[in-house]
Amino acid sequence: MSKLSGILAPVITPFRDDLSVDTERYVALCKRLLAEGCDGLVPFGTTGEGTALSLGEKTGLLTALREAEVPGAKLLPGTGLCALPETVALSRAAVEAGAAGVLLLPPFYHRDVSDDGLYRHVAEVVQRVGDERLQVYLYHIPPVAGLGWSSELVERLARDFPATVVGVKDSGGDPAYTREILQRLPRFGLFTGNERHLTEVIERGGAGTITATANLNARALRRLWDGWGTSRGEDLNDAVCAYRRALEGFPLIAATKAARARIEGDPELARVRPPLEPLPPGPTDDLGRRLDALAALAPVR
Amino acid sequence: MSKLSGILAPVITPFRDDLSVDTERYVALCKRLLAEGCDGLVPFGTTGEGTALSLGEKTGLLTALREAEVPGAKLLPGTGLCALPETVALSRAAVEAGAAGVLLLPPFYHRDVSDDGLYRHVAEVVQRVGDERLQVYLYHIPPVAGLGWSSELVERLARDFPATVVGVKDSGGDPAYTREILQRLPRFGLFTGNERHLTEVIERGGAGTITATANLNARALRRLWDGWGTSRGEDLNDAVCAYRRALEGFPLIAATKAARARIEGDPELARVRPPLEPLPPGPTDDLGRRLDALAALAPVR
Repeated sequence: MSKLSGILAPVITPFRDDLSVDTERYVALCKRLLAEGCDGLVPFGTTGEGTALSLGEKTGLLTALREAEVPGAKLLPGTGLCALPETVALSRAAVEAGAAGVLLLPPFYHRDVSDDGLYRHVAEVVQRVGDERLQVYLYHIPPVAGLGWSSELVERLARDFPATVVGVKDSGGDPAYTREILQRLPRFGLFTGNERHLTEVIERGGAGTITATANLNARALRRLWDGWGTSRGEDLNDAVCAYRRALEGFPLIAATKAARARIEGDPELARVRPPLEPLPPGPTDDLGRRLDALAALAPVR
Repeated sequence: MSKLSGILAPVITPFRDDLSVDTERYVALCKRLLAEGCDGLVPFGTTGEGTALSLGEKTGLLTALREAEVPGAKLLPGTGLCALPETVALSRAAVEAGAAGVLLLPPFYHRDVSDDGLYRHVAEVVQRVGDERLQVYLYHIPPVAGLGWSSELVERLARDFPATVVGVKDSGGDPAYTREILQRLPRFGLFTGNERHLTEVIERGGAGTITATANLNARALRRLWDGWGTSRGEDLNDAVCAYRRALEGFPLIAATKAARARIEGDPELARVRPPLEPLPPGPTDDLGRRLDALAALAPVR
């Protein structure tokens, strides 16, 4: 059963001028996001440019978070890599760092991959990590990864590894998939990748959301999570959806970093690693104006 | 200018029963492929399940090849990974192992990637490896990687890094792309990923082919490379194309491994790493019959 629920931030990764990981800023940001109301953090997700980080950089950040006393129970690091031995090594490092779970991308290079092949990959990861503390969330994001976890496969894995495969991050953008998972697997740890679907996920018994905007708008997301079902629920949802819409039309990762840099007054946070590009000054100003306008509306306190 | 030309095999990677890399079989296979007529070898390509191998496994194989006195000048290892620091580390290891060049996949996770972002990635790799021996071949395989190197970007990189960016492996399957590259960049080190296009590549001044079937049919490919333009050219090409057709309808990597296992009488060679699956016994027999029928025809000596 999923130990995680609520609002999780796929933490952006700050880089120094030489493109090295800025561990100090990373740890400080993680602490602030928790203080802003996030229930948990997802290091090395898509928004965190996880695939752009080396294995050593990722284990280094997990160590830094532990040394800074960021609770492992609030961490769900992305550990799904293309190579089985590296997926096993990073997942084991996450378990040893006390992480609540690991978020597994499917091995995302080859295209002609069957459900049986993906099943075997997960079975090998579970067996090789060999630690009953391991909790796996399957990361379903076919528009980016090029392949995903079918609902049949999710069900099969959840049934065969009931103590281990406990959730899915659903960034597929297909509400029918979301519904199918929650029908097949009641109380499964399903997190939607887009807060526009959060209220439906709450009503269907899912676990919450892991969304880029939790890097920016955690307080409002928290209010929605806590207040959906009350008389203010629709207003809270409107506010959250309006914030999400303000980011539309911008490349999401660069825009999230630019917007967080603006919140912090720290332009360093806007940097990305190639092949991504930072948001240029003009669009950064446009985005800033959109977010200012939203703040001025202040629809909910 | 490309130092490599002719027939290059994207070497399959043998695995032991526990899915570890079988270094001994790997080195022996590399030596046999060179003896069979390959001009060079591409470790860690798509057919070699390169993305399924850890960084440490790849550097270990490069060391093993050097210790076994497989000439570095015949090696073009795949070193393009998603993370810049890992791409740099593996490319540097390849240069230090004396490799003739490195084959760079674009960082293949994110989708919304611009030519400018990819340019910067390559520029960072070149600068960070910081070794004038580095020779880069761009690996263009958008049907698998999800993004590729546009012909405009190839030209820009070749012009800005004339001593370093010397070729492309073209597995895009679009003859117009191949022609455009060879028109923009005469005598560029273009290798086609499919031998059906080899004669056109030869005629347009390209460098050769890197094709899965070079793991199986190197002698016939070598004869075509040497004999195109002679009176036997068309027959040699027909033989090569017939061999390729025999593999159609099978998953290419698993089929290539199954067929090489059959050539060697060594079923161990057929093993793949998840998420791929080995060719089942029935299709393995079908493939064997097809290849036997071709051998019986023996169209060319």
